[in-house]
Amino acid sequence: MAEGAQVHSLISFSMSSLGTGFFRNLLMLLLPLTASSKSMRAPKTSSLFPLRAASTAASQYIQEASLLAMLASEAGERKLIEAAVEAIGRISAPLQIGDDVAVVDAGGIGLVLKTDMLVASTDVPPQMAPWQVGWKAVVMNVSDMAAKGVKPAAGVLAIGVPGDYRLEDFKLLIKGASDAAREYGFEIVGGDTNACRELVVAVALAGVAKRIVPRSGAKPGDILATTGYFGLASAGLKHLLEGLPARPGDREALVKPVLEPKARLREGLALAPYASASIDSSDGLAWSVHELAKASGVGFRIEHIPIAPEAASFAEDNSLSPLDLALYGGEEYELVVTIPPESWSAAAKAVEEAGGRLIRVGVATREKHVVAVVDGREVEVEPRGYEHFLT
Amino acid sequence: MAEGAQVHSLISFSMSSLGTGFFRNLLMLLLPLTASSKSMRAPKTSSLFPLRAASTAASQYIQEASLLAMLASEAGERKLIEAAVEAIGRISAPLQIGDDVAVVDAGGIGLVLKTDMLVASTDVPPQMAPWQVGWKAVVMNVSDMAAKGVKPAAGVLAIGVPGDYRLEDFKLLIKGASDAAREYGFEIVGGDTNACRELVVAVALAGVAKRIVPRSGAKPGDILATTGYFGLASAGLKHLLEGLPARPGDREALVKPVLEPKARLREGLALAPYASASIDSSDGLAWSVHELAKASGVGFRIEHIPIAPEAASFAEDNSLSPLDLALYGGEEYELVVTIPPESWSAAAKAVEEAGGRLIRVGVATREKHVVAVVDGREVEVEPRGYEHFLT
Repeated sequence: MAEGAQVHSLISFSMSSLGTGFFRNLLMLLLPLTASSKSMRAPKTSSLFPLRAASTAASQYIQEASLLAMLASEAGERKLIEAAVEAIGRISAPLQIGDDVAVVDAGGIGLVLKTDMLVASTDVPPQMAPWQVGWKAVVMNVSDMAAKGVKPAAGVLAIGVPGDYRLEDFKLLIKGASDAAREYGFEIVGGDTNACRELVVAVALAGVAKRIVPRSGAKPGDILATTGYFGLASAGLKHLLEGLPARPGDREALVKPVLEPKARLREGLALAPYASASIDSSDGLAWSVHELAKASGVGFRIEHIPIAPEAASFAEDNSLSPLDLALYGGEEYELVVTIPPESWSAAAKAVEEAGGRLIRVGVATREKHVVAVVDGREVEVEPRGYEHFLT
Repeated sequence: MAEGAQVHSLISFSMSSLGTGFFRNLLMLLLPLTASSKSMRAPKTSSLFPLRAASTAASQYIQEASLLAMLASEAGERKLIEAAVEAIGRISAPLQIGDDVAVVDAGGIGLVLKTDMLVASTDVPPQMAPWQVGWKAVVMNVSDMAAKGVKPAAGVLAIGVPGDYRLEDFKLLIKGASDAAREYGFEIVGGDTNACRELVVAVALAGVAKRIVPRSGAKPGDILATTGYFGLASAGLKHLLEGLPARPGDREALVKPVLEPKARLREGLALAPYASASIDSSDGLAWSVHELAKASGVGFRIEHIPIAPEAASFAEDNSLSPLDLALYGGEEYELVVTIPPESWSAAAKAVEEAGGRLIRVGVATREKHVVAVVDGREVEVEPRGYEHFLT
């Protein structure tokens, strides 16, 4: 594993913004309900016991702010992550902030942990069946483990269900989660179920690894590659949520990645010995490439934007930019990796032997910009995900 | 560790009923809102993709039922757990259903996982401050690890926050979770935050252990013991939620266990080499003893009901039964363990050296009943938690 992060404490804290949750429009419709219902508000600070944190240095940064507004912008998101990291304080060094999984030294064993929560109002389109909800909740966690080259050893499931959720649907949801786990070679071994105002599925995965593939190991000259073509899920979402037409023969190709996404675990494990940096593309290709650039201190020149043909047709039919679909879409669980040139052949072969493909899309550069070559001309790739595409 | 469960796959699936969530009355007030708001309902089954589970043998058990009704009764709870276990199907043998944590073999390493979700409407009394919410979410998970004799190595946090939750409160919540983790010798190393209709905090803990102390190892003649006195939290809840008066000098003793509970981790680790069976008392002393009885195939004779003096005073002032407070209360995070008689001295000494105390309360019996000696007379202890006490 080239340039792998050392096993110690590697903190991982992610925020799903309204945008990266990809159903911002849905959520916006529901907001008045939340805002108008006093009884749904979280309890406010009580003076019964002194708030210990209020007396620490951290309190100087405390300010009144609506989390909703913060979740809606990338700057706000980053601020929230910083707030979380600040609240937690210093973790046993060496420490690296902001990777996709956390690694801790448990008596000489590298324990890798990952948690990601699926919330109905932001992550579940109306067309998604309960089995698919469980499936997706697990897949989005597996995808991050895949990007880090770690095989999940087991998973647990904490579920909040609305009172009128049906037993049949509950069983299908758990079966979906369990089927997804088995698909990736592990099992759901425990869980907790609670009554909740909306459907929430929090999955936590654990694995054992000596090192993980970081976001930060890319060097100028490394080859930028992906494990698949882009634009399918963002086209599928536009079809499902906004009713934009899809060609009958393409419909399943567009919709299936939204409702039954796949994680590239076999590919990620095959790439682990070769990749210098890696991330999944759940926040969009452009966003992922920018994250690799930022963490590694490099830039990227995307010479070939990997657009799926069905996404290109969908864009053409609906007068959309195919590049926008591929670059600024999201909820696609491909891996975006960098490979040192001397390892390219071996890496590509390893991925093929694992049943996948490695698509060369560009190169890491010394100049810290992310550009794409479009019609022979270099254009700037913006550091944004799907959210701004929607507005 | 006497009678420890072997490391392989040990499934853990818990359900927090409205009752064991302990704020049933609060939730009941909120129900009309949930029931009347169509937009809050979970999406129904779609026929876009075939539901794979529907074609399995499991489907013969599928029936229409409201989860809310099921969560409200113990029989329903058990049915839900069975539904979850059935949906998951056979896990790599040997397998034990229904213990408090899950253990899996990860390449020869015993990986212990635990997840428990805190939901505002059922787990957070109005007086609970954000720091305390984070604290409690971690403590309730640590308590189960403590009962199994496992030291948590790390934790992750998946948080759903309402849109109007304040940044200040968010930071305090995370700080509370982080402070609780540090109190028990580990760290919160990662997390995920999402917009959600109500405040939800799902904590997952991981540890490494060769064996755990099961619920099922008690033998007739083993000594039944607890790590503390009971009734404080149930009195505290009645004070906080129903406004029953508490003596000024006792108030903190009653309220603190509700708002800032402690887990008995040091005691649990000290007991691990000696205990034949163990469980925490978060669902109430009577419930916990019955669970040990059921899992071990024994009965118990409780010779001394360990009532906290402040709880006894509260009961006297409010014309309540002190025994009911101690037996059928809950949200108390003491450990309830069985110790073979020959290990008693060593176990008691180990707990004292860990800064705690081991209180002898009874004995395991061959007769499969749970009885308590009250005023020299044996009375049946019912297998119920706080929920029925409330109604």
